[in-house]
Amino acid sequence: MTLNIGMFGAGRIGIVHARSIAGNSRSKLIAVTDLVPQAAHSLASEYKAAPMSADEILANSNIDAIVIASSTNTHVDLIEAGIKAGKAVFCEKPVDLDLRRARACLDIVTGQDRPVMIGFNRRFDPDFTTLKSAFDAGEIGKGELLSITSFDPAPPPLDYVKVSGGLFCDMAIHDFDMACWLFDAVPETVNATGACLVDPEIGKAGDIDTAVITLRFADGRIATIRNSRRAAYGYDQRLELLGERGLLSAGNVLESTVIKSTIDGIDSAKPEYFFLERYMRSYAIGWAGFVDAVLDGKAIPVSVSDGVNALAIAEAAGLSLAQGRAIELAPVL
Amino acid sequence: MTLNIGMFGAGRIGIVHARSIAGNSRSKLIAVTDLVPQAAHSLASEYKAAPMSADEILANSNIDAIVIASSTNTHVDLIEAGIKAGKAVFCEKPVDLDLRRARACLDIVTGQDRPVMIGFNRRFDPDFTTLKSAFDAGEIGKGELLSITSFDPAPPPLDYVKVSGGLFCDMAIHDFDMACWLFDAVPETVNATGACLVDPEIGKAGDIDTAVITLRFADGRIATIRNSRRAAYGYDQRLELLGERGLLSAGNVLESTVIKSTIDGIDSAKPEYFFLERYMRSYAIGWAGFVDAVLDGKAIPVSVSDGVNALAIAEAAGLSLAQGRAIELAPVL
Amino acid sequence: MTLNIGMFGAGRIGIVHARSIAGNSRSKLIAVTDLVPQAAHSLASEYKAAPMSADEILANSNIDAIVIASSTNTHVDLIEAGIKAGKAVFCEKPVDLDLRRARACLDIVTGQDRPVMIGFNRRFDPDFTTLKSAFDAGEIGKGELLSITSFDPAPPPLDYVKVSGGLFCDMAIHDFDMACWLFDAVPETVNATGACLVDPEIGKAGDIDTAVITLRFADGRIATIRNSRRAAYGYDQRLELLGERGLLSAGNVLESTVIKSTIDGIDSAKPEYFFLERYMRSYAIGWAGFVDAVLDGKAIPVSVSDGVNALAIAEAAGLSLAQGRAIELAPVL
Amino acid sequence: MTLNIGMFGAGRIGIVHARSIAGNSRSKLIAVTDLVPQAAHSLASEYKAAPMSADEILANSNIDAIVIASSTNTHVDLIEAGIKAGKAVFCEKPVDLDLRRARACLDIVTGQDRPVMIGFNRRFDPDFTTLKSAFDAGEIGKGELLSITSFDPAPPPLDYVKVSGGLFCDMAIHDFDMACWLFDAVPETVNATGACLVDPEIGKAGDIDTAVITLRFADGRIATIRNSRRAAYGYDQRLELLGERGLLSAGNVLESTVIKSTIDGIDSAKPEYFFLERYMRSYAIGWAGFVDAVLDGKAIPVSVSDGVNALAIAEAAGLSLAQGRAIELAPVL
Repeated sequence: MTLNIGMFGAGRIGIVHARSIAGNSRSKLIAVTDLVPQAAHSLASEYKAAPMSADEILANSNIDAIVIASSTNTHVDLIEAGIKAGKAVFCEKPVDLDLRRARACLDIVTGQDRPVMIGFNRRFDPDFTTLKSAFDAGEIGKGELLSITSFDPAPPPLDYVKVSGGLFCDMAIHDFDMACWLFDAVPETVNATGACLVDPEIGKAGDIDTAVITLRFADGRIATIRNSRRAAYGYDQRLELLGERGLLSAGNVLESTVIKSTIDGIDSAKPEYFFLERYMRSYAIGWAGFVDAVLDGKAIPVSVSDGVNALAIAEAAGLSLAQGRAIELAPVL
Repeated sequence: MTLNIGMFGAGRIGIVHARSIAGNSRSKLIAVTDLVPQAAHSLASEYKAAPMSADEILANSNIDAIVIASSTNTHVDLIEAGIKAGKAVFCEKPVDLDLRRARACLDIVTGQDRPVMIGFNRRFDPDFTTLKSAFDAGEIGKGELLSITSFDPAPPPLDYVKVSGGLFCDMAIHDFDMACWLFDAVPETVNATGACLVDPEIGKAGDIDTAVITLRFADGRIATIRNSRRAAYGYDQRLELLGERGLLSAGNVLESTVIKSTIDGIDSAKPEYFFLERYMRSYAIGWAGFVDAVLDGKAIPVSVSDGVNALAIAEAAGLSLAQGRAIELAPVL
Repeated sequence: MTLNIGMFGAGRIGIVHARSIAGNSRSKLIAVTDLVPQAAHSLASEYKAAPMSADEILANSNIDAIVIASSTNTHVDLIEAGIKAGKAVFCEKPVDLDLRRARACLDIVTGQDRPVMIGFNRRFDPDFTTLKSAFDAGEIGKGELLSITSFDPAPPPLDYVKVSGGLFCDMAIHDFDMACWLFDAVPETVNATGACLVDPEIGKAGDIDTAVITLRFADGRIATIRNSRRAAYGYDQRLELLGERGLLSAGNVLESTVIKSTIDGIDSAKPEYFFLERYMRSYAIGWAGFVDAVLDGKAIPVSVSDGVNALAIAEAAGLSLAQGRAIELAPVL
Repeated sequence: MTLNIGMFGAGRIGIVHARSIAGNSRSKLIAVTDLVPQAAHSLASEYKAAPMSADEILANSNIDAIVIASSTNTHVDLIEAGIKAGKAVFCEKPVDLDLRRARACLDIVTGQDRPVMIGFNRRFDPDFTTLKSAFDAGEIGKGELLSITSFDPAPPPLDYVKVSGGLFCDMAIHDFDMACWLFDAVPETVNATGACLVDPEIGKAGDIDTAVITLRFADGRIATIRNSRRAAYGYDQRLELLGERGLLSAGNVLESTVIKSTIDGIDSAKPEYFFLERYMRSYAIGWAGFVDAVLDGKAIPVSVSDGVNALAIAEAAGLSLAQGRAIELAPVL
């Protein structure tokens, strides 16, 4: 059986998902909608799908599931509309920038039986899942101190920064989810330090570009996240997990294994440049998880609840930065 | 335009090529033939192609090109039949186990205008092409000493060993081609040392399982190849090229970037297990090179002449091993 | 000219310094004192020095400098006594566990011309100085985010933990000094998260064994320190410094370069086991810095002021942990 | 008890040995002789030894052992004179450039009870001994294929090349000894390929600067050695040993662990520049082995017989290169 898909949003991330859909033998892109008709048309034609309006997609009984890859402020409404129309839903992160709205969406989703998945793709990165499997198998015993390095190669355009919800909601949210996923828990307190060091314009826009966020879990375990909007050498995405019997680490994926040794030194290749390169496989694997969940009745790998948790941590991080103190997560949640 | 393909041989390597054909938007598998009808039927049905007889494929005017993935002793006849039928031809290595037959085939091919490509897939490995590009760009100056490490994870079944043509024709032939490709030349002398160390049954079958072959080129450059039929840690495929201004090396592709540090040491992942894993990308890239050559009139990336050269080096290596001396290649060629 | 040395303390760290003294052609161990006469006698005889009382050392006009390697609570008194006796002073870290006492000592030292050096040996580690030289030379531009990993292989005996002054004063103090040294500045705020995860007995003794401390400097630069009393694979001592044009990192020094590849994986050697192995060279280099400063009138590489700063950060970290908020350093200093 | 040493030769290698002697608490440099009196005087005064004539050293009953660090053509005579004078002898490699003379020397040494050691210092390199220990402990099972990489950073002066005995006697001889030591055997056949690629002047002097030598042992094991007089990135000294259950490798020792990641790539430090840096520890350890052998009656770690074996392989390699065939070692030995 094949899952027929309607796509909301034909921008950069919609194109990524369209490729995953086409690369999976159990899913097929049927329809695409976008505020820019030309974008919808172009993506649709590449995959022999039809450009449609949003309403047509929702009303089309031949479409089994929708992918929400449109702007963040449309996510909650489309999740609810998709459920109401009886579709399975795959929605890009974040659920919303507003924690209250996201919680309300969770309430609605909870009462339904249609599968809804949030696109935290990094959970499906093969290196990260290898690390988690080793950890879950007890190879280093009890976890103690998790460290996540997440540096972008270069800051996004300032116009994007202004509507992004800020570094915590836009960038660190992936790392918050990663910490909850690896430790199978939600933190108790959130402690953030931040600065604007990369580009003063980001500061003028009210955001930071460099941050360290430290999460403390109820049983004392600690996760610390380092974020920067700029790493001149490329996308830096690493994990280190210290446990009672050792350390598990996942390093960067390099562009090649070629090493050049000259009088100037020993030079290796750089990390894959950005998320489209580094996480291409994880998008496809995450998509397969969604398809399998819908078609085979398996558990959804990333729930709306996961999305709400990550968002709550982002909100707590913002409070911590503003108030200069550790924030308890429970009241925020 | 799409290149319609008829496949000879539905075994392990045929399956690999079928996947490359399907993964390329400009080629389509139309027909499959195999001595075992069930194998042809099964592969054909997976790709919505038709099982056919060899004659039907050659006679089918809808088929533009054939892929020869059948046993080595059929290669030359099928190359000639394919050309006679007006097909482009992609043939697995080696051209033949008999150098005279391969040379005769080259004579026939040379007089024709149909493209014929030999499947030395390693030339398309992204790490190796990155190394060659850096070398050709002069990053280490003139080349001096090339070292190729090529160890299989485990020896093939003894029945295969007996018909394989021996380690030089079956295994080292890839490395001979790699040396000629990287140095853009054919060696002047061939010097081989070998032994049976892995499995005495291989020795009883008249073959060796461990070898060092050293090639000397007319201008003094040296290439040395290390082969073993067994590396307990997996497929070991590395290059090192020393030049006047430094060293370029291409390392193994590891199964993951995860490192585990415990009281027992610092443990990294192993190399990808064998050629199907390690060279999967190179098969696809090589196939694209063939499709582009046929459809766009580009140069064939690996010619029958390349196949004959590698085979001649294998024959010289065999002579060197038997006679305990360096063999000049020119008389062999 | 040779610097004649009197040693206070013949324990583990006194033995380290005695070796540095003997390995330096410009210094000579003359006298050793210790509460345990047998220890003083044994160390003295190994280096052909004389066991003496503390008063004898201070009164001996043939002794140019003293090394204070006795217990922490004696440091301040001995620094002052050494100065009063006209000796140059090399004192192990920390200056004292009590910030007020350390500050008072600084006041006294400041008014004197005898050189006094605090033994923050890690500043002299060849890898760390290589990193700092590259940073100071502008190789990655302006610094933004410094990360220090500092894990001990195993917790110290509980009796030691109880008198150690706690993880911040005893262990992290090295990292606080490292951050100030690398950034050539004192932080503005200190933010600590900690837990007792390694051994509940440490918690019962009122201490923690796992911590993340984040320092924010006036210009926004951030330094984050990860500490654990246990790393099953050995002493983990690494630096990472992100700047506007890249990242500088200093990795662990491994016990050997030997790698074993088997069916179980690719195994490297572990880091050198603990500080005596890893920092042996840095002790010798730091000692040479002291000798050169005293004999050649060069600047003292690590001043009492540096020691007070690190201690103040430790105190602020303790406050931050207790109060769950970022602590401004200025009022503490 | 202390071993009093008389040194023959105060050049580069004599200076190295003088440092090892001084660094060992059981040996003391007493006397130095050199054809250049000023050199002898200078080295002697650095270590509070006396400049003497060769005869004075041999006649001095206070001198227990001599170190022969003078030019190669003096080695055999001095070994014999040392033995006759009742001294223990430590002699730099090679025993001689002439295999017959070396064999004659071995005959003389064999009939004596004074310890004579040949300075194949690489056997004492900590990484190489770690590798050998792991191998001897059976960690990879039976050995099959040993690969030695040995590239100098830059060719020696042409005047040195002319009297060096050629690449095989001067440079590869270390690697021949390494192969015999690791495999605990002498090879059966020697197969050499060589060229002059680095500097045509070396070719005009009748030597080569680039070579691959492959040794085959009686039980089929193979060792292959790669030599070049030039590696732009520094001294390249690596071992790889493939066995039935895996691979042991020893990599280069890098100048630091610092890695710089920028837009230009990921840059590590280069290998330690040349043998004085890389093998400084091995000289000291080897010297300790000699001292322990003489004072404690332990076995000499490297015998004259080892020196003769390595020289015989060098001679066989020269024959192989000249005649283009594998040379059996037995008739040469």
